[in-house]
Amino acid sequence: MKAVQFNNGIRIIDSPRPDPPKSEAVIRVLMAGICNTDIELARGYMNFRGIPGHEFVGIVEQCDDPALIAKRVVGEINSVCHACDFCKRNMPHHCANRTVLGILGRAGAFAEYVSLPIENLDVVPDAIPNEIAVFTEPVAAAFRIHEQIDVNPGDRVIVLGDGKLGLLCAQVMRLKSNQVQCIGKHTDKLKTLDNLGIETRTPNDPLEPNADIVVEATGSADGLKRALQLVRPEGAIILKTTVAHETALDFSLPVINEVRIIGSRCGPFPPALDALAKGSVRVSPMIHATYALEDAIAALEHAQRPGVLKVLLNISE
Amino acid sequence: MKAVQFNNGIRIIDSPRPDPPKSEAVIRVLMAGICNTDIELARGYMNFRGIPGHEFVGIVEQCDDPALIAKRVVGEINSVCHACDFCKRNMPHHCANRTVLGILGRAGAFAEYVSLPIENLDVVPDAIPNEIAVFTEPVAAAFRIHEQIDVNPGDRVIVLGDGKLGLLCAQVMRLKSNQVQCIGKHTDKLKTLDNLGIETRTPNDPLEPNADIVVEATGSADGLKRALQLVRPEGAIILKTTVAHETALDFSLPVINEVRIIGSRCGPFPPALDALAKGSVRVSPMIHATYALEDAIAALEHAQRPGVLKVLLNISE
Repeated sequence: MKAVQFNNGIRIIDSPRPDPPKSEAVIRVLMAGICNTDIELARGYMNFRGIPGHEFVGIVEQCDDPALIAKRVVGEINSVCHACDFCKRNMPHHCANRTVLGILGRAGAFAEYVSLPIENLDVVPDAIPNEIAVFTEPVAAAFRIHEQIDVNPGDRVIVLGDGKLGLLCAQVMRLKSNQVQCIGKHTDKLKTLDNLGIETRTPNDPLEPNADIVVEATGSADGLKRALQLVRPEGAIILKTTVAHETALDFSLPVINEVRIIGSRCGPFPPALDALAKGSVRVSPMIHATYALEDAIAALEHAQRPGVLKVLLNISE
Repeated sequence: MKAVQFNNGIRIIDSPRPDPPKSEAVIRVLMAGICNTDIELARGYMNFRGIPGHEFVGIVEQCDDPALIAKRVVGEINSVCHACDFCKRNMPHHCANRTVLGILGRAGAFAEYVSLPIENLDVVPDAIPNEIAVFTEPVAAAFRIHEQIDVNPGDRVIVLGDGKLGLLCAQVMRLKSNQVQCIGKHTDKLKTLDNLGIETRTPNDPLEPNADIVVEATGSADGLKRALQLVRPEGAIILKTTVAHETALDFSLPVINEVRIIGSRCGPFPPALDALAKGSVRVSPMIHATYALEDAIAALEHAQRPGVLKVLLNISE
């Protein structure tokens, strides 16, 4: 099968089709999405070597569960052992022995076929087209916030960052709060939030501090410092940015103000699929380009251009 | 009255006795305790000028509530407006207009008399001697943790720091968890935890990571970095250190591990008084010296010597 390979550079290779154990399904990939993490991996993040890609929608071709055969599915990216302390304590996303699709120890979905444990798969409702379903994983990451903190209608929420994750977090926070502001540098990206009841601001606009919740999704090392200036005493900062270099911060302020800073990663697929089916989270304005798998190198370059949001790979639609 | 004054140096001055509004009581100070914050204030922290001191026990001499006259009391240090947004939202400790005893805009207790709002006062049970009651405020700060997170008997807790606050936090965590370790550099300080069911370790001892809760009370800029290495995924770090200079940290780890970092400051007096009355928190081994008010300069010097825990001022006992 054709696949993208990261290995000191990016290549399109011919790779064996997955031949997984019985607990896993083989899925023919229809579409895949390029995430900032893929770009980081291409640059050497986590020393990743192999087939990347963790946002996908596909058709189950081979599976021990006959009910899933020929079904259109998306898949949770963490494959877990069910035996370690974290699995036993109901924190499977933090499984000590986990592999992560296209990120850690498991070939990803920028390929004609991918395999994942059957238990990871969620069937996609017919109402959701492929180019929308492929957003399930990042929308789920935004829904993770609702598992971590209570968000009330009157809570004032500031989302820092107008990248893909920032725009999705703003929409998902808007499902519970009536006062969401998204702050970003790119007015064209912020425009995708128009008509959703989400205020948008650029960093130079005056901003009222003392927000109840600040979601830090800037992808920048300075985001947390800005979040600490904007959150109220006893407020919450949700940290979404994984910046792998050090940030200098004065930690006396969050102690005096008793701020909660909460790291936030992968989230639940069912509410994400539900929101995409209902259209309560809108992702189509974020699709900026679609490439064939053969053109993945050009697609990855496109995804890194300023102002570009989601670039998709149409693999076998 | 005699009082200690911080004003580009430390002096013993003659100061007018407090003459507060009717909502406040005048208290004759029996004993006061020297906290690290006092030492920081003497060095210029918060640009404090005036009479320091926020840990005290005293006798009410003047008060509109006749039931409090001649009662022995301790007092919560934040005096609040009851009108600002934070007060209305039941976060009086974060009152936007607050004064803080001996720290911010209010003369403190290193003096023969001090005044505080009547509502701030708690009567001290007869069973608690003065030199124990004077610890109520820092013990309350440790009890703040129980208001902020659930601590279960099986939770493994690591307290970083063997200063006064670290030792108190270890004891207060031990009231709910059967597995508390306190990590510090000073074996003599750690000894005060002997026979309390609290394990002690020095920083070079091997330490099992993946603690459920890490309390960071080192007073050092590096404490948070160490805490992040020791806490488990989805675990909690309680930040007690107010270090007013910047710390460089890699924030990708707490995001990937979904760690909660929670700033923690002042706490509730009633459980602190209860613990001191029952002896479930033991502070007497922490008393290293007692000085008269006239000798406060020597007392403050003593409190800064390596290995020294609590130094008290016996003011009018």
